[in-house]
Amino acid sequence: MQPPERLLTGPGPSNPHPEVTKALAAPLVGHLDPFFLGVMDETMANLRTVFGTSNHHTIPMSATGSGGLETIMLNLLEPGDEAVVGIIGYFGQRLAAMAKKAGANVRIIEEELGQIIDPARLEAALNEKPAKLVAVVHAETSTGACQPLGDLARIAREHGALFVVDCVTSLAGMPVEVDATGIDAAGSCSQKCIGAPPGLGPVTFGPRAIEAAKNRTHPTPTWYFDLDLLFQYWGDAGGTKDRVFHHTAPVSSIYGFHKALQLILEEGLEARYQRHRDAHAHLVAGLEKMGLSLFTPASHRLPMLNVVNIPEGVDDACVRKGMLERGIEIAPGFGHLKGKAWRVGLMGYNARVERVDVLLAGLEDVLREQRL
Amino acid sequence: MQPPERLLTGPGPSNPHPEVTKALAAPLVGHLDPFFLGVMDETMANLRTVFGTSNHHTIPMSATGSGGLETIMLNLLEPGDEAVVGIIGYFGQRLAAMAKKAGANVRIIEEELGQIIDPARLEAALNEKPAKLVAVVHAETSTGACQPLGDLARIAREHGALFVVDCVTSLAGMPVEVDATGIDAAGSCSQKCIGAPPGLGPVTFGPRAIEAAKNRTHPTPTWYFDLDLLFQYWGDAGGTKDRVFHHTAPVSSIYGFHKALQLILEEGLEARYQRHRDAHAHLVAGLEKMGLSLFTPASHRLPMLNVVNIPEGVDDACVRKGMLERGIEIAPGFGHLKGKAWRVGLMGYNARVERVDVLLAGLEDVLREQRL
Repeated sequence: MQPPERLLTGPGPSNPHPEVTKALAAPLVGHLDPFFLGVMDETMANLRTVFGTSNHHTIPMSATGSGGLETIMLNLLEPGDEAVVGIIGYFGQRLAAMAKKAGANVRIIEEELGQIIDPARLEAALNEKPAKLVAVVHAETSTGACQPLGDLARIAREHGALFVVDCVTSLAGMPVEVDATGIDAAGSCSQKCIGAPPGLGPVTFGPRAIEAAKNRTHPTPTWYFDLDLLFQYWGDAGGTKDRVFHHTAPVSSIYGFHKALQLILEEGLEARYQRHRDAHAHLVAGLEKMGLSLFTPASHRLPMLNVVNIPEGVDDACVRKGMLERGIEIAPGFGHLKGKAWRVGLMGYNARVERVDVLLAGLEDVLREQRL
Repeated sequence: MQPPERLLTGPGPSNPHPEVTKALAAPLVGHLDPFFLGVMDETMANLRTVFGTSNHHTIPMSATGSGGLETIMLNLLEPGDEAVVGIIGYFGQRLAAMAKKAGANVRIIEEELGQIIDPARLEAALNEKPAKLVAVVHAETSTGACQPLGDLARIAREHGALFVVDCVTSLAGMPVEVDATGIDAAGSCSQKCIGAPPGLGPVTFGPRAIEAAKNRTHPTPTWYFDLDLLFQYWGDAGGTKDRVFHHTAPVSSIYGFHKALQLILEEGLEARYQRHRDAHAHLVAGLEKMGLSLFTPASHRLPMLNVVNIPEGVDDACVRKGMLERGIEIAPGFGHLKGKAWRVGLMGYNARVERVDVLLAGLEDVLREQRL
């Protein structure tokens, strides 16, 4: 297995810290080994800090980020429930699709690509008809837009709805603050700002969400993602009951994830957020110097995912191919933005000025070739 | 991350081959990188060989073995469907629980622990009332029993039912032969006889299963495990359509899995099965020399998972603790066998006479101490 060396500056996976990669290859132990039970408890504790929550029910799901989000939907929604989903790009559509799969009647609040949802629209939607659950994407990876959460959380809760957030791209790269914001359940991934390989779906469930899951009329339509079964293995809130086998945890992946969380806490969340902002500012300045512009309005741009307009006359696929030949991955635009924009990610270990310089130099080089 | 070194001779995870561990730490690339798309195609092809199938729909699910089995149930069953599940231990109960979660009316055929199901019982059950799906466990990890599949497959198909097999413990350690046996869908795991870390759920779906999934009345209650969405990413049967993003594949885990499959094919399936039988025979001889006996009748014992009776007066937990202090993991009995038996796994890389000797020496040592 000799993959090419890549600078992964697409929408994730991002390059993990070398120590994370090393942890993947640490000696395997059993999923009920006393050593591993300790790793699980530390992982939960550190993940709580990164989410900004005291929620006991905070774990990396043994599935990718999408699996974590589906865990939220399948446990909190049941057939006939009302849900409101905010859509500002592809990942909002995906939340809506998952809520429908869970059997909910889904109403959507949609905004144009690049824009964000005005809290007044949520207020109006909930005044018209209450909902059990409101879900939005914090950092929309398809458009580079950052959806502010505070007002939406307040409005959802004032109307008695659970507030659910997809923070797949934002977590550990900018503040999410589950408890302070008033988020009832949130799901992220391992391979973006957390800086581990893809494969795990960190989730957190607050007391209102756990209550809703307990008060279901129908059983969940899932064994693998069932919260009750999951926490028989990960441990109940009091730590009082014996752990019961559910599935065999992905031990090596959790080693890597555990190390990634440790590195985040060693760096400090604030310093890490600042590093993401600095890398972003450096990228934007460099792009502007090259005459390139960003798709997303500056008022609500994400730091870790930059959507860059493709200049007139430049061949999208050729540029991405040229970059890949130089060992640099950037991603195409998504959906309607395909052929019109590139997506450039600066996440986790890659949110560094030196790496931005490599990326900028590569892009300048490839664009120069294109123009010849 | 400095886990203790363990000889993992429980029910899995087993120790991976060092080259598999090395592959986990290979440079990460994107999930749509041309290099990785090649790895995906090779993984599918090699996995087909290990399953003994020409089924296009053969992939490692981005979830553990349980997630793979749930994928089968949630796609092949829908509310109101009839299912018959054979139960010869805990993992049969789990199949029944999953089928119920999918909304099926589940009838069970249960046998005493250690025993296997007589095909005549399936014939009688299906004569009484037809079913859409029949599911059994090939290698029951909780009892060490091997359920012969040929007659069950024939009877299920004669009655128009899909035949589904949990081969979590058997695959790559003994013949499964999906096509020759007449299995319509099967699910396994990465961490037992395949010899990779836990985290992936290899599955295969034959044409009758795919047809059944296509002819559903209700949509599947899952986005993450939905077959149609999954194969938009893994590729359609003709390889004609562009791959569409679904979830971000667990790249590093698939590196390890890909390497594990490669090592299996290099060794040869027959040689590998023989190695598992040899290690088993060596273990049984060694145990008998120590005056220990196996729980499972010799007529249908698994080679890779041995259920060993705990001798009168010996403290179960103390022995397992003593073994762990010597760096050797063996597992407790499951359910009714807890305190009465140990489960000793010889899977993948660990199915070697030299490793069995280490295990036997450790057990002899610990038992001697116990008797003092």
